[in-house]
Amino acid sequence: MTDIQSALKEYSAWFNSKLEDFFPFPDGQEKRVVEAMRYSVMNGGKRLRPFLVYSCASLFSISREQSLNTAAALEMLHSYSLIHDDLPAMDNDTLRRGLPTCHCQFDEATAILAGDGLLTYAFEILSRPQTADEKSRLELIALLSRDAGAFCGMVAGQMLDLYAENTQEPDKNLLIQRIETMKTGCLIRFACEAGAILGHADNSSRQALVSYARAIGQTFQISDDILDVEGSRELMGKTLQKDQGQGKVTFVSLYGLDKAKAIAQELTDQAKEALSGFGPNAENLRNLADFIISRNH
Amino acid sequence: MTDIQSALKEYSAWFNSKLEDFFPFPDGQEKRVVEAMRYSVMNGGKRLRPFLVYSCASLFSISREQSLNTAAALEMLHSYSLIHDDLPAMDNDTLRRGLPTCHCQFDEATAILAGDGLLTYAFEILSRPQTADEKSRLELIALLSRDAGAFCGMVAGQMLDLYAENTQEPDKNLLIQRIETMKTGCLIRFACEAGAILGHADNSSRQALVSYARAIGQTFQISDDILDVEGSRELMGKTLQKDQGQGKVTFVSLYGLDKAKAIAQELTDQAKEALSGFGPNAENLRNLADFIISRNH
Repeated sequence: MTDIQSALKEYSAWFNSKLEDFFPFPDGQEKRVVEAMRYSVMNGGKRLRPFLVYSCASLFSISREQSLNTAAALEMLHSYSLIHDDLPAMDNDTLRRGLPTCHCQFDEATAILAGDGLLTYAFEILSRPQTADEKSRLELIALLSRDAGAFCGMVAGQMLDLYAENTQEPDKNLLIQRIETMKTGCLIRFACEAGAILGHADNSSRQALVSYARAIGQTFQISDDILDVEGSRELMGKTLQKDQGQGKVTFVSLYGLDKAKAIAQELTDQAKEALSGFGPNAENLRNLADFIISRNH
Repeated sequence: MTDIQSALKEYSAWFNSKLEDFFPFPDGQEKRVVEAMRYSVMNGGKRLRPFLVYSCASLFSISREQSLNTAAALEMLHSYSLIHDDLPAMDNDTLRRGLPTCHCQFDEATAILAGDGLLTYAFEILSRPQTADEKSRLELIALLSRDAGAFCGMVAGQMLDLYAENTQEPDKNLLIQRIETMKTGCLIRFACEAGAILGHADNSSRQALVSYARAIGQTFQISDDILDVEGSRELMGKTLQKDQGQGKVTFVSLYGLDKAKAIAQELTDQAKEALSGFGPNAENLRNLADFIISRNH
């Protein structure tokens, strides 16, 4: 296990223990929706986005405790997107991280509500006084709502993804870049920019982190596509080659495996280059960029 | 047409014209989700919640322009809840205000995304500088995310409603009160409390508006149940007696028509009593309470 894997694993264990506290046990029969929310959020995952929030914030001497609420809010939002993406009307997935997806474990109505609840909860958490000072909280809420939204954020990316599945439009190159940027890239960019906001970073540091985020976001998507072809079912814990089966456009289907790998490497170099101003403090983030391209699940 | 109907109609026309501006036309193929959002939000409705925001805020000399963003955010959130409630996995409704529901007009995946987009957009709008000062914006976001949420808000109410449909639990009396409070009451309470926040109301004025909201919220739900039995299909523009057909608990099925009407009248009196401290300025809100109990669609 490399240093970054250890760091990620250690952070993830700490984060998971803190995350439990965000789910009180309600008394009434409505607790089913909270159970579904908890089930989905606590079901593993590498906690890459929370780790990014913390790692970027730590460049400005912000502790993991101080960045916890922002990291938790982002993970709630990410989990909501997975629950809704998995629904029968969307990707119709039955397995997520080796366990039944939310609508399979509970039912479709509960899964829709659990997603709605998590999305709403993300903003509730960000609005809490302990998240940050007033100005920073408002900035985080404005940024997350835009990055997750329907105009140029995650919801728009998901819509475009559905469109791309059902079209023979020639310029799939442009399309896939836009889908990736909006669907996956927006939240990864938010993670890094949120770290800069929490740290009251100056504009050039913030822009450097945004550039880093853009590059690793793309690498993340490309390596996901590569894993979908090369990965093992056991390690990924989800239905493999599903994207191919459904005729989805992927970086691999578009460029072929070798070219896709070369692009991913180039982006990883760009990501590390963007961090040059931070010196040795950014070693975690550099290693994370290498980890994303080399991960096997 | 009574004075309050004229005032509501006039406000609603103004509000609708302003609401259009909240929906830019995106260029790409992802615009389908924005079209679905616009379709659902612009499809009529009495704009009762926005009118409540404005009417309560106006007690403190806040103009309708100054309360617009808060009113719009609430209407986005209300519209999202209708879209998701109408989905096949939830109430499976095909008609809403006389037009096809979002998933019938577009498709199920688009409707899920349109709801997600509107929920997210509500918080984006609230975070904008022109909504209010920083402190008030954060208070509005905290309040709306709690009132719309899964712990004791609208999502919890919807979960409980689904549970109530499938249970023979004896204490349906208690259950229906809790469902109503969380599912419908929370957003009506938010509307009134938001007016108080925008107006920087003192605590006793704010509590008076919360009491008013609780009473009209309950009246609203009871009169909906009554209309479901007595109303005409043409005026309501939705499938009638559906709740009864699905075996849902309603105030009418629980208490009978006469008792339900008597309860609604008592609540209306309570609502008006709560406004006593505001004098003649609150005439709009008093008339609105009378309107809610007497409306025929």
